[in-house]
Amino acid sequence: MVLLEFSMSPFDKGDSLSEYVARSLDIIDKSGLPYQLTPMGTILEGEWDEVMAVVTACFKKMSGDCKRVSTSIKIDYRAGKSGRLKSKIRSVEDKLGRTLST
Amino acid sequence: MVLLEFSMSPFDKGDSLSEYVARSLDIIDKSGLPYQLTPMGTILEGEWDEVMAVVTACFKKMSGDCKRVSTSIKIDYRAGKSGRLKSKIRSVEDKLGRTLST
Amino acid sequence: MVLLEFSMSPFDKGDSLSEYVARSLDIIDKSGLPYQLTPMGTILEGEWDEVMAVVTACFKKMSGDCKRVSTSIKIDYRAGKSGRLKSKIRSVEDKLGRTLST
Amino acid sequence: MVLLEFSMSPFDKGDSLSEYVARSLDIIDKSGLPYQLTPMGTILEGEWDEVMAVVTACFKKMSGDCKRVSTSIKIDYRAGKSGRLKSKIRSVEDKLGRTLST
Repeated sequence: MVLLEFSMSPFDKGDSLSEYVARSLDIIDKSGLPYQLTPMGTILEGEWDEVMAVVTACFKKMSGDCKRVSTSIKIDYRAGKSGRLKSKIRSVEDKLGRTLST
Repeated sequence: MVLLEFSMSPFDKGDSLSEYVARSLDIIDKSGLPYQLTPMGTILEGEWDEVMAVVTACFKKMSGDCKRVSTSIKIDYRAGKSGRLKSKIRSVEDKLGRTLST
Repeated sequence: MVLLEFSMSPFDKGDSLSEYVARSLDIIDKSGLPYQLTPMGTILEGEWDEVMAVVTACFKKMSGDCKRVSTSIKIDYRAGKSGRLKSKIRSVEDKLGRTLST
Repeated sequence: MVLLEFSMSPFDKGDSLSEYVARSLDIIDKSGLPYQLTPMGTILEGEWDEVMAVVTACFKKMSGDCKRVSTSIKIDYRAGKSGRLKSKIRSVEDKLGRTLST
């Protein structure tokens, strides 16, 4: 299982991007994969091929009407671990012995 | 004001990194800047120099006892906007007309 | 066409990673896609599905014997442009009116 | 010593960004630090504070006349190693036993 965080933005649509981000989130939300929207991107959890299929669907949509698109992706694979959308944060809080801003 | 997301990890300490992440979070939590810990990194909000000072403090700590350290940083500057840890997500939800997994 | 830069590293194999990077480069070099190896990653040029297939092949290989793998990917899509491994640098040099360190 | 790769782009200036990239490269080229321009960013080599000062100078310039700026930074620190703009690539080529496209 992997955690995949990505953000995808057009460069040719001015400085307010939430309309385009919303179209991606609609695809993500309907994919059925566990995810978390953050202020800087979206984090998906699943098998490599599952999460990549969602990113690819978002790209096909955005490149349909945007001439320049920038995408950044970060992937954290750990063998045999799932449920890490929650457990990675808990693990850090446990080490520190206090709750953090999440 | 900028939103800065970063993650910083040692490469020479095996595959469980939460102890090192916890030391960074201790620095971040005590910095007084608004932040959000996510499963893939930490997002800080502040002026460029303020958020960079926090990242630098985390690096000085980690490079003190780790021989190889990998850092990734993403920064989103938007003139004259603050409170974006909350408002960016709301803006996407408003466009979609429903709440998302956050 | 897209330019895709990526780096992929194991976290559980100590601080010298060139053996694992070399295995990925072998896959990349044999893919037939234009690419450039840099000190921080590898840049591929091709259609979205072509370059993603190469990244996926590198991941399948590395996750075969590494328990934790970190991947970062940056993609720059521009409609109707190819040959950008060379032309993006020339374009910056032309604007500045001098050659740069490449 | 660190290798720092970064790219910095305005979001509100349309889809051709080489004029803005050229201004950053002018700052980088005059900094005196070793660097390499790639099709996806610029890689600097130096101490943490030196390379961060260059990135900060580029940001101050760009945020002077751009309302939204996106920056991505990747840093690879390895204790006691310098000259890695060249040596990292050679190390991969040595492992593979052939030269690669650089």
